[in-house]
Amino acid sequence: MPRARSRCLARDDCGLLSSWLDDALPADVADALAHLEPAQAARALPLLAPPQRAAVFGYLPLHMQSGLVAVVPRAALTELLEHMSADERADLFNALPSEQCAQVLPALAQAQREDIRRLSAYGQDTAGAIMTSDYAALAPGLTAQQAVEELRRIAPDAETIYNAYVIDDARHLVGVVTLRRLITAAPDALVADLMQPRPIVAHVGDDQETVAELIGRYDFIALPILDADGRLVGIVTADDAMDVVRAEATEDALLAGGTAGRLAGTVRGATIRQLYRLRVFWLVLLVFGNIFSGAGIAHFEDVIAAHLPLLFFLPLLIASAGNAGSQSATLMVRALATGDVRAQDWSRMLGREVLVAGLLGLTMAVAISAIGLWRGGPDIATVVAITMVIVVLLGSLIGMSLPFALSKFRLDPATASGPLVTSIADVAGVLVYFGIARVVLGS
Amino acid sequence: MPRARSRCLARDDCGLLSSWLDDALPADVADALAHLEPAQAARALPLLAPPQRAAVFGYLPLHMQSGLVAVVPRAALTELLEHMSADERADLFNALPSEQCAQVLPALAQAQREDIRRLSAYGQDTAGAIMTSDYAALAPGLTAQQAVEELRRIAPDAETIYNAYVIDDARHLVGVVTLRRLITAAPDALVADLMQPRPIVAHVGDDQETVAELIGRYDFIALPILDADGRLVGIVTADDAMDVVRAEATEDALLAGGTAGRLAGTVRGATIRQLYRLRVFWLVLLVFGNIFSGAGIAHFEDVIAAHLPLLFFLPLLIASAGNAGSQSATLMVRALATGDVRAQDWSRMLGREVLVAGLLGLTMAVAISAIGLWRGGPDIATVVAITMVIVVLLGSLIGMSLPFALSKFRLDPATASGPLVTSIADVAGVLVYFGIARVVLGS
Repeated sequence: MPRARSRCLARDDCGLLSSWLDDALPADVADALAHLEPAQAARALPLLAPPQRAAVFGYLPLHMQSGLVAVVPRAALTELLEHMSADERADLFNALPSEQCAQVLPALAQAQREDIRRLSAYGQDTAGAIMTSDYAALAPGLTAQQAVEELRRIAPDAETIYNAYVIDDARHLVGVVTLRRLITAAPDALVADLMQPRPIVAHVGDDQETVAELIGRYDFIALPILDADGRLVGIVTADDAMDVVRAEATEDALLAGGTAGRLAGTVRGATIRQLYRLRVFWLVLLVFGNIFSGAGIAHFEDVIAAHLPLLFFLPLLIASAGNAGSQSATLMVRALATGDVRAQDWSRMLGREVLVAGLLGLTMAVAISAIGLWRGGPDIATVVAITMVIVVLLGSLIGMSLPFALSKFRLDPATASGPLVTSIADVAGVLVYFGIARVVLGS
Repeated sequence: MPRARSRCLARDDCGLLSSWLDDALPADVADALAHLEPAQAARALPLLAPPQRAAVFGYLPLHMQSGLVAVVPRAALTELLEHMSADERADLFNALPSEQCAQVLPALAQAQREDIRRLSAYGQDTAGAIMTSDYAALAPGLTAQQAVEELRRIAPDAETIYNAYVIDDARHLVGVVTLRRLITAAPDALVADLMQPRPIVAHVGDDQETVAELIGRYDFIALPILDADGRLVGIVTADDAMDVVRAEATEDALLAGGTAGRLAGTVRGATIRQLYRLRVFWLVLLVFGNIFSGAGIAHFEDVIAAHLPLLFFLPLLIASAGNAGSQSATLMVRALATGDVRAQDWSRMLGREVLVAGLLGLTMAVAISAIGLWRGGPDIATVVAITMVIVVLLGSLIGMSLPFALSKFRLDPATASGPLVTSIADVAGVLVYFGIARVVLGS
């Protein structure tokens, strides 16, 4: 697009801009473009050399990519889509409205259309959905020298050539070989002898978290993905695995913070409507949950009316139950998320939890009984101290059990570390506190 | 170690074990060994071929590595340490008691001792502490063919040869070149012409999170680390960056869950004492924080005594304040952690927060006023509805501001999404609720 560039160069500062665009890393250029309107960005894209252009386009947020598809001229769009990596192209088509897909698809080559159709078919958050079909494949009968030659030929189109996948005639994966191994081996050594046989793999339907875990565990550059018949259909690269780890951490954090957990795009870019929808469900739901605490208090109104000083300790007792529960839940959620603890380990964790929570409860009881004595006298101090031990224990047990229960019902355990456990612990705290008070103090 | 292996093979099932050990991935063997006592593991290690042995050793948890150092014979230990990667070796020496260091260090080569001394000097969680000095360096004057030859020679000792770092005579970094570029280029092309000049770098003192963010942002295989004089001193690889992302996510989650945030090792492997210490600080601290809520309630005892039905709504109002606060805090903590929002963006986020929280507060007020009418009549319903709008707004503003305030005081913003914000919101909720009740209802 020399025309566009020379038009730009007429301005003084454009020489600088243009040399920056050629030199800068795609992620940085994409960052700059993401702040523009699609129409402005469409004018900036032709300033880039074609491969750089596709790389930059791939780094743009999806909503920006869709916006650009609508305004970039047909010929330029086809060229852009052809240079994109297969997984990014499939993601884009998944995000496009169907009429736009229908307009753009015919412009692509048959193989790319097939690719998009296949990659788009996999469920959200599966290995199939995040993999790319641009992998480097080798035949087992090649020599190291021939293999390097083949990788050199494939390089422009492959996501990575540092791991190559050795497949037989039926595309079954028989091994993995690294470029490092290939270039350090004797030139006439056979790929079949250099490869690592029986490689670690995942399947198209596996959860993306499983894929990220395997890549993280073995420090892989990429993980091969097989279909149901054991044929190699794609790879997930380490940089995509890192995106998964980050996305899952964000999702877990948002769930733990009492939101719906899924925010398309960034916090900064979210609209009022998106933020409202992200937050309203749990807030309203928990209001109704907390009605049980209110009902518990109402049930004990006579005890409270007779011993108003009890109210002083109410917030700290229910907060302690909730805090202990939230600690236990968080520890278990993280342990489950990192694979450190498995769904069937609940009973094994239970004994230790009772011990730790018991010790914590006793510590808290000691800490609070002095204040109990000062504010309410020996009877109330006794009630408060006993309640503290019980609610910390109870809160902890609820907190550590809830993630296991949720994962049993195929819900995300991360939900447990949020206000859900606090609300349940609150109800338990109210009932235990005034129940003990009624027994010890009468009403 | 053929002696150990033949002794083992005398048993029936050991043939299988032995062939598994040769074939298995280091991470898997390490996982199996980690469940043994150090003395048992020390007997198992000699069954492995030397390079596999060092790789497996590197994957063992640090406490296991230290345990093994104490029981593995001197000669075997020296060999093991020599085969380890520089960063793992430095981590191990950091974890060893000083008398053990003094015993082991003399057995190592001068260069390795220097390396350990240098790598151990960097502060915890800095780029320097997680980098390795086993990088591949090239001179700019080499041809592509010579460079590949050089990488082939370096390969056995380098952490990665897929990115090579081009340095001048003073070890200043002048560019980065990928092996992909080198093998696809004309054999006589100069490295200086193939390399990407002005590469993205980090410095030894930079936070490890910054390093992980750069690697994630640009999808790098490794990031070069410079010292204060701009000399190349190491690299951080993508797999180490992924470990950082996971560790930081765990730390943030634990902080959000109201624990001290740092657990050496896994949740599963933690001792009662470690778990107690992880949890006790915030639990006790928050008890004292909640005394303010108690004092608030005590202050309004006359209002409460005159209108006991108010108590029914207390838990849900203070919980709503806390939940709204925890949502806002979590969103900001995540946005700050991922670099989506920066420390100076507080005021820009404020307007949107007020709008969203206002809408949420109104929704909640509508949801609760029906129950207010039914449980307490129109006056109490009015008090509850007004309180709801204010506490959701107030909680949200406290929640979104706290992470910024903490990062201003150089504290970890993730602390904000924990029970800290809930406790502050609780106090605010109590004061607002009974304050409004006193005005509307009298006492």
